[in-house]
Amino acid sequence: MLPPPAPALLQAALDEATRAIGLSEPNPRVGCLLIDAEGREIARGHTQQAGGPHAEIVALRAAAAAGRSVRGATALVTLEPCSHHGRTPPCCDALVAAGLARVVVANVDPNPLVAGRGLARLQAAGLQVEHLADSDWARAARELNLGFFSRMVRGRPWLRMKVAASLDGRTALDNGSSQWITGEAARRDGHAWRRRATAVLTGIGTLKDDNPRLDVRLVETRVQPMRVVVDARLETPPSARLLQPPGRVWIYHAVDAEAPEHAARAAALRAAGAGLTRLPDPQGKVDLAALLAALSQEHAVNELHVEAGHKLNGSFVRAGLVDEFLVYLAPRLLSGGLPMASFGPLRALDQSLDLRFEQVDPVGEDLRLIARPPGRSQF
Amino acid sequence: MLPPPAPALLQAALDEATRAIGLSEPNPRVGCLLIDAEGREIARGHTQQAGGPHAEIVALRAAAAAGRSVRGATALVTLEPCSHHGRTPPCCDALVAAGLARVVVANVDPNPLVAGRGLARLQAAGLQVEHLADSDWARAARELNLGFFSRMVRGRPWLRMKVAASLDGRTALDNGSSQWITGEAARRDGHAWRRRATAVLTGIGTLKDDNPRLDVRLVETRVQPMRVVVDARLETPPSARLLQPPGRVWIYHAVDAEAPEHAARAAALRAAGAGLTRLPDPQGKVDLAALLAALSQEHAVNELHVEAGHKLNGSFVRAGLVDEFLVYLAPRLLSGGLPMASFGPLRALDQSLDLRFEQVDPVGEDLRLIARPPGRSQF
Ligand SMILES: NC(=O)c1ccc[n+]([C@@H]2O[C@H](COP(=O)([O-])OP(=O)(O)OC[C@H]3O[C@@H](n4cnc5c(N)ncnc54)[C@H](OP(=O)(O)O)[C@@H]3O)[C@@H](O)[C@H]2O)c1
Ligand SMILES: NC(=O)c1ccc[n+]([C@@H]2O[C@H](COP(=O)([O-])OP(=O)(O)OC[C@H]3O[C@@H](n4cnc5c(N)ncnc54)[C@H](OP(=O)(O)O)[C@@H]3O)[C@@H](O)[C@H]2O)c1
Repeated sequence: MLPPPAPALLQAALDEATRAIGLSEPNPRVGCLLIDAEGREIARGHTQQAGGPHAEIVALRAAAAAGRSVRGATALVTLEPCSHHGRTPPCCDALVAAGLARVVVANVDPNPLVAGRGLARLQAAGLQVEHLADSDWARAARELNLGFFSRMVRGRPWLRMKVAASLDGRTALDNGSSQWITGEAARRDGHAWRRRATAVLTGIGTLKDDNPRLDVRLVETRVQPMRVVVDARLETPPSARLLQPPGRVWIYHAVDAEAPEHAARAAALRAAGAGLTRLPDPQGKVDLAALLAALSQEHAVNELHVEAGHKLNGSFVRAGLVDEFLVYLAPRLLSGGLPMASFGPLRALDQSLDLRFEQVDPVGEDLRLIARPPGRSQF
Repeated sequence: MLPPPAPALLQAALDEATRAIGLSEPNPRVGCLLIDAEGREIARGHTQQAGGPHAEIVALRAAAAAGRSVRGATALVTLEPCSHHGRTPPCCDALVAAGLARVVVANVDPNPLVAGRGLARLQAAGLQVEHLADSDWARAARELNLGFFSRMVRGRPWLRMKVAASLDGRTALDNGSSQWITGEAARRDGHAWRRRATAVLTGIGTLKDDNPRLDVRLVETRVQPMRVVVDARLETPPSARLLQPPGRVWIYHAVDAEAPEHAARAAALRAAGAGLTRLPDPQGKVDLAALLAALSQEHAVNELHVEAGHKLNGSFVRAGLVDEFLVYLAPRLLSGGLPMASFGPLRALDQSLDLRFEQVDPVGEDLRLIARPPGRSQF
């Protein structure tokens, strides 16, 4: 038995995984550290863009490029190496072929195509395999990929609802004015969270009032999230800024796009590059649970970043679909204005949507709060 | 010249001052540390209840009781020793008589009866006097007494507005239900802040809806704050719980208490032990600036703890009289309900009440935020 890897090495593998944010989408963010028998690092790598090499392959290539042998080495990998032929050949085979002695993983891949088969294959090939389940390392690696785990385990994205509000909870004045409630640092931080997401979603109210672009501009990124509009009656103007590049745009609607009163608009939106999908619910709105299933299954959306007004936010809350609130609170009072999410009225306090504060951090002059429904924190 | 006192000794004097919270009201919270020529502690003390000995006297007596000499010693005092005969003889004289060699103070007493005269008197008596103005020590000692400084410098209390709200900024449901939005730890913490205050104030709306006691129950205290009600039309029911002991109660009203329609109620309230003062403004409401002046000048209120509903809160905000918000945010969404403070409607975002977050701390499951208008942070 080899000794357990030092915490600093596990952390290094995790740091490497973090570098895949904004790059590997929709593949999970995975880091791999190759270490020798004395526990010294040989090489490291993280998942590249979809279709590119996975973390293990990047690390093996880095070792080869540096002329370092990996015979008898240990690989620390934040997710079980893949065993199936996807767009790339299985990483398991590459690790075996390279002559590694041992593989330590943080989590088993929730992808039903892998799900333990990778570890079994490595074991069958004579490698020592360790799964550090229930470790802080495993939790952190899962947290980094909560969208991917959500998609694989629940068949829907991790829904993060972003809200910029005053200390008294207002997201806009009654006249719709909301630019800007929070400061520049918070807006930049908001873009860093958009960058994490496979898709950014808004509602037709926000689209009409603010005509937002919803892309990632204030931080660097290699991939742009897809933009999604919930637009029951196909009212998105074909001139909307969000229809411009970069990235794909998808509109989910409730009305029949082929009906005479909608056909011309639908055609114009398609011509502007938008995809259209009809998902009506019995009330003639968009079926939000079906929307999440579609985003997960048809567009491989891991983290869904919702940046909408109080009405659509309220619909998501009412449907019980919000996994996380990302709230920027500005140190100011607005007295009145639009709320964060309208799902009431409540008759008693015990009807509230109960959350738990997970993180609280200053961002510029503002405060960033991350809150989740209790029990929704992990899979 | 003696060397400057070690930071740990300055901190010890400050810690001692902190122990006067809930005890010395309305006198400032002062700590005194007596140290010998080698910088070793001889004794310490803090201000006792009003009429009792000040910090310096307590420390001198402690030294005497321990049989320790204070000849040639240094006194570290967080506020200039008093030079006037109040309810106790001047501390300056006691320090001189005891044969001290040196006195180091954090701040000059803002009380116009002292205001540098104490230091001058000590110097005239041959003691070495040092005033560590602009030091962290001085700032911390002032912060601990911001109510006393406010009363002395501005002629009004430091107004702290306490709000318990949901993450989306609601202080009650539309039906008035507000017990309890925050958790037990936050409520206990709220009592610790009431304990700091010379007076706790509410509005007639809250009094009618919640019938609160507004005393300090959930933490220990030696003194109970005075309770104050803003009740323009003298509608406080003589059976209100707040009229029960402990502590004094004062009602500020706008109507004429001797008018036939109010006289009986006024008499009943007086019989129940409440003091009544009429302070009408031109709109027939209570003149809030005059109210603060009266609390400061007639009741020696240092810190005023406001625990009212959105209407009275809004009136204080509109009058520009709020020095600090003490906000407990519960991790829950209520969708709608009563706001924190109604002073709108605003037509543009730049009409907001701008604050700065000074402190952010978890309290149980909730979050405690302290925010102040920029520039209002110190005197
Ligand atoms: N500070 C912030 O973080 C922030 C972020 C975004 C927007 N805003 C502000 O919010 C305001 C816009 O608010 P809003 O509520 O009008 O915008 P919104 O929530 O983005 O969009 C509202 C629209 O969504 C519809 N909707 C709700 N649930 C639906 C469902 N299940 N299927 C289909 N449609 C659904 C509503 O229809 P019904 O009317 O039929 O319910 C309404 O037409 C603007 O002032 C904007 O500046 C602020
Ligand atoms: N969560 C919390 O921290 C918290 C704390 C306290 C109360 N509450 C909740 O707040 C609700 C009560 O709200 P509220 O707004 O009715 O209570 P309030 O603000 O305590 O009292 C309202 C009354 O104050 C009057 N007022 C405003 N400015 C005044 C002035 N300058 N002079 C004299 N009177 C003035 C108002 O008169 P006008 O109507 O003429 O303006 C109104 O009659 C209750 O549901 C209670 O549970 C919550």
